[in-house]
Amino acid sequence: MGEFELLEQIRERLGASGPRVVVGSGDDASVTVPGGATATSVDALVEGVHFRREHASLVAIGHKALATALSDLAAMGAEPGEAYVFLGVPPDLDEAGCLELVEGMIELARATGTTLAGGDVSRAPALTLSTTVVGHAAAAEDLLTRSGARHGDLVAVTGELGGAAAGLVLLEAGRNERLDLIERQLRPRPRLRAGRALAASGATAMIDLSDGLAGDARHLAVASEVALEIDASALPLEAGVGDAAAIVGREPLELALSGGEDYELLVTLPPELYERAAAAVRETGTALTPVGEAVAGAGVEIRLPGGAPSAATGFDQLG
Amino acid sequence: MGEFELLEQIRERLGASGPRVVVGSGDDASVTVPGGATATSVDALVEGVHFRREHASLVAIGHKALATALSDLAAMGAEPGEAYVFLGVPPDLDEAGCLELVEGMIELARATGTTLAGGDVSRAPALTLSTTVVGHAAAAEDLLTRSGARHGDLVAVTGELGGAAAGLVLLEAGRNERLDLIERQLRPRPRLRAGRALAASGATAMIDLSDGLAGDARHLAVASEVALEIDASALPLEAGVGDAAAIVGREPLELALSGGEDYELLVTLPPELYERAAAAVRETGTALTPVGEAVAGAGVEIRLPGGAPSAATGFDQLG
Repeated sequence: MGEFELLEQIRERLGASGPRVVVGSGDDASVTVPGGATATSVDALVEGVHFRREHASLVAIGHKALATALSDLAAMGAEPGEAYVFLGVPPDLDEAGCLELVEGMIELARATGTTLAGGDVSRAPALTLSTTVVGHAAAAEDLLTRSGARHGDLVAVTGELGGAAAGLVLLEAGRNERLDLIERQLRPRPRLRAGRALAASGATAMIDLSDGLAGDARHLAVASEVALEIDASALPLEAGVGDAAAIVGREPLELALSGGEDYELLVTLPPELYERAAAAVRETGTALTPVGEAVAGAGVEIRLPGGAPSAATGFDQLG
Repeated sequence: MGEFELLEQIRERLGASGPRVVVGSGDDASVTVPGGATATSVDALVEGVHFRREHASLVAIGHKALATALSDLAAMGAEPGEAYVFLGVPPDLDEAGCLELVEGMIELARATGTTLAGGDVSRAPALTLSTTVVGHAAAAEDLLTRSGARHGDLVAVTGELGGAAAGLVLLEAGRNERLDLIERQLRPRPRLRAGRALAASGATAMIDLSDGLAGDARHLAVASEVALEIDASALPLEAGVGDAAAIVGREPLELALSGGEDYELLVTLPPELYERAAAAVRETGTALTPVGEAVAGAGVEIRLPGGAPSAATGFDQLG
């Protein structure tokens, strides 16, 4: 099967386009009428670097490729709109396999209101998925960058941390005691609704936790020119992370701080807006937990339970 | 050097953003205010599939990655806006090499008014560049798809054909008699201004010639539900294609019809609009040549010089 036939098969499965899409996949370019402002992000998964086919089904890989890209839109508080996908197909992946990948994308696209609006397919030495996502907002001011945090802002995170990293160490150790954590690693759920709720609640800066809280917090601190003090004992650890960490001889806090891939949101906001924001996030089905404060200075300081403060870089070396 | 340091180096080289870009590279997503309609396309180049590093400099590969994507915007008659790039970096490409690639993109971005507005970088087994481009128009109706050709429309092409394929066969044969043709292969120039001129001149359908005229004409014929009759003797062969074809024992017409990568535009338009359209295209520095007609029916018929008509599929088998 050639590129054109595969694209045709994919297009047959795509279903209806979103309201902004005038011309979908199949022409030289897709045509949309965005209105307002757009947020655009690219995220790529490469076999052997970001995933292994022996750990993840093709459906899960397709899901994750779209999920990690959509997580960046969540961090902007954008409404998901369109996705454009480059699929690099290795010699040992047949047509049916490609369609399984796409099926994983389509499921998540439907669940989130995203239109798969175009892309490209090529042969490649390793399975490669590069996903460009476009999200929308009424105006650019409604979208939340990393750079608006102010001294005195509270720092908070959505959901629970450490689960994805715990799932990964279990997978790599060949242990399957906690399928919920493995699912957390393989099937991340972008916090799109929580991100929009936070942007609408007066949050000042936001980032998604893809590389691990310690590193991602530093990106936000640098962009906002503030220091972030994080209280490690306040971090909402996912249930089972302690057990999983014990199985493989790791520290639960290490998994939460530098494991990455939780795809939760780290957000800053004025303390007086916290209750309202937490209520809005709760309505989307998840929790908002205060974990620290933005202060004058630079960098990230993680206050460990019962110990001296530790610079975040110490944790990076464990990761 | 890690991913973040390389991205930082790249960002330092990018220069000023276009007027629609509110937040450029470096946040979770880029923010733009498009206005009107957007055309979005993805085009990927994979080492060993689309190029070889022994034939092309890194600057040329970067140029071509953006050029082939922009050519799709040319075919829509869109004004180029933003580009988002995934760069998959193989083990034998160092930081300086990555920056050369990006330099090739930046040069063409500047020349075309495109903003490199974001992207992603990852390790990969082979050099991979996936480029998502976004173009703009005042309204969706100003953008030209493949599907508007009508019976009686004239079929025309911009520029000259066969040069890129001739350059490729010379490269592969290790011959460097015609550096102009090799340059044509390695450094395609998207016909952005000609595409906009044609869209504004009342053209009915358009496609860029990436796979070769025979195949690309068929895409347009299928999308428009017409047949295209192409007079092969009318095709504007690029100077030197005959010589190059003779050197490697190929037919010049075969190179023009099925060689591909000329990145010229194939367009249909009512005959009465031809003179005005040709004048508008001439102002952009290239020619518009009538090569056939859209008629009732399906498929593409290539009328060979002095011979019987031949279905385009015959040429595909030569390619």
